[in-house]
Amino acid sequence: MAKRHPAVEKKLVGLADLVIDAAARKKDPAIAIPVRSLSNVTFNVKKGFIEMGKNKQMRTFFNVGMAKKFMQTMLVADALNELQKADLTTSLREIYYRTKHTMGDSHENTFDDQAESDPVIEDLEVGLSALREEFHVRAENAGTIIGPVVFEDDGDKVDCAKLGKGGYSVPSIVEEEYLKIKKCTADFVLLIEKGTQWNRLAEDKFWRKYNCILLTGNGQPPRGVRRLARRLHEEKKLPVYVLVDNDPWGYYIYSVVKQGSINLAFESQRMAIPDAKFIGLSSADPESYDLPRNVGIKLNDKDISRAKELMNYAWFQKKEWQVEIKRMLTSGLKYELDALANKDFQYLTKTYLPKKLKDRDWLD
Amino acid sequence: MAKRHPAVEKKLVGLADLVIDAAARKKDPAIAIPVRSLSNVTFNVKKGFIEMGKNKQMRTFFNVGMAKKFMQTMLVADALNELQKADLTTSLREIYYRTKHTMGDSHENTFDDQAESDPVIEDLEVGLSALREEFHVRAENAGTIIGPVVFEDDGDKVDCAKLGKGGYSVPSIVEEEYLKIKKCTADFVLLIEKGTQWNRLAEDKFWRKYNCILLTGNGQPPRGVRRLARRLHEEKKLPVYVLVDNDPWGYYIYSVVKQGSINLAFESQRMAIPDAKFIGLSSADPESYDLPRNVGIKLNDKDISRAKELMNYAWFQKKEWQVEIKRMLTSGLKYELDALANKDFQYLTKTYLPKKLKDRDWLD
Repeated sequence: MAKRHPAVEKKLVGLADLVIDAAARKKDPAIAIPVRSLSNVTFNVKKGFIEMGKNKQMRTFFNVGMAKKFMQTMLVADALNELQKADLTTSLREIYYRTKHTMGDSHENTFDDQAESDPVIEDLEVGLSALREEFHVRAENAGTIIGPVVFEDDGDKVDCAKLGKGGYSVPSIVEEEYLKIKKCTADFVLLIEKGTQWNRLAEDKFWRKYNCILLTGNGQPPRGVRRLARRLHEEKKLPVYVLVDNDPWGYYIYSVVKQGSINLAFESQRMAIPDAKFIGLSSADPESYDLPRNVGIKLNDKDISRAKELMNYAWFQKKEWQVEIKRMLTSGLKYELDALANKDFQYLTKTYLPKKLKDRDWLD
Repeated sequence: MAKRHPAVEKKLVGLADLVIDAAARKKDPAIAIPVRSLSNVTFNVKKGFIEMGKNKQMRTFFNVGMAKKFMQTMLVADALNELQKADLTTSLREIYYRTKHTMGDSHENTFDDQAESDPVIEDLEVGLSALREEFHVRAENAGTIIGPVVFEDDGDKVDCAKLGKGGYSVPSIVEEEYLKIKKCTADFVLLIEKGTQWNRLAEDKFWRKYNCILLTGNGQPPRGVRRLARRLHEEKKLPVYVLVDNDPWGYYIYSVVKQGSINLAFESQRMAIPDAKFIGLSSADPESYDLPRNVGIKLNDKDISRAKELMNYAWFQKKEWQVEIKRMLTSGLKYELDALANKDFQYLTKTYLPKKLKDRDWLD
């Protein structure tokens, strides 16, 4: 069972009170929603993450352009409050279905598709300063973890050092109320982009030899995986090393883990890990580790323009990062972690990572 | 650590012996590879699954058109044998990287991309009658399981009734040597297409009340999930119920679980579950469960042509299936399981599935 967030419930009920209040005072009910556009997003160099500015927009009911959106906001808030009261979690899609109905005798639907309800949930997240996970809105389980950490999930003690090679499936919502970190004796977290390297390391029991936690999100890490890495970092003081392919996508994944993303700048304060390190694959590695050029993949036009874009981001301005990305562009090649198998199947476990860790060879 | 398959190793070594033998006798080495094309695939009505016929093609070395393919086959077999000897597993992609090199002083690569090495692995699967999992070739963990079943994975006892709401992450390789089913007291397996319904049921502890195993592959179930369902069915005699969206894709997912697929007909004998039942969402359900039409989604042209295609498949010839698919076409609508949330968030757990099970309302 989900545990209640009385504070969140209060915020949602507060919205309804605001409308009742305005009606009683014969005023136009209005809600202030922070503006979620690029113009209201900045990279906070001191904090080390992307954050939202203070611009807000009023959403009012007696305004032809806003009335429908206002009504939709109230419907979604009502559904979210239903989740709070019943101690349930659900998905973005089900929120859409739950709040969809035909209005009165009209042929007009409250929502025509999910593209209308999703932004309303984001509005409420920023407007009420609560993560969607606190609203009990989840995505699918989409990550795997193994290593010396014990969780409490729904009353069960889950020892991630005793789950064979399979591991624990990371839930979408990993807030304290849902998932307690009961014990953690690991020295660091290795956040691995792809499942295949995670499997290699799990099979080789790398986590046991190096006393670490292996975590993967199978690609761009989903929110649950990022939030769990952040909690392990914050609560257990574990360094987080990010292991990705050497391509613009890999750099981007690392940057989202570290600084958060522009689109969801609001969540950075709860998700970003400004201290995260980039452990590889670096564009210097093919030479250092003697990878043949024929296991590199030619950069395509999209890779090149994306890499140039990354070089302009405020958070990639450090000299080492400019060198890192430029070197990839100069070589004309990108490399997947899988290419390490060209040396031998256990090269990642037995040579590459041990050397990286020993030499403290990472980027910040 | 992976456990060895001496029989598989023997088969791989046998391939090398065949070449040495032919060389000693000054003959052209040749391997017989069953033909993997539609013409060599049939639906075996009696067995209830799609299977390969007996057509084979000889692959010879002294043949300009086949020499490269022959060499590639030997290289891949050698890499697979390396996995056997070292007790390791790996991915299709790493097999490609492992076997890629430039030949002699030429500029010719053994493989130019993975599209060349994957079919060779399939050739070896059918040629040597071994699943790729027996060759130690894995995909990513891509499914989740919860319920009253205890596995032994790498020496650890994993009790899937004690993993909170998160569950055990299903490995790609679930053969007996890797994953033992130590104990199972469940009455049936519910194989759920989407993670979101799996989460709903896990959160509501549906598995405890109905004494079942909840298994999902987050979409089209990956091989590990299918194989695990098959093992639970075969070894523990558990009925398997498949829960999918009501659309052509959902029907197709069900049919692959039940009869196997045309593309990978060879694996059906180890993967298919001819007794699997389709528990929903049926095209009869929107009416039976009073779902409003506005939560249905209009069938597009692709849906319609796919549905008509399905109606022609040998395994959808039963009258009830013709009625089922035709009814969807007539209504012009498809429905997602998520749409049940329109009634209430727990409708799936508390009303829909209990009634389905009580009424034994499923299709075979």
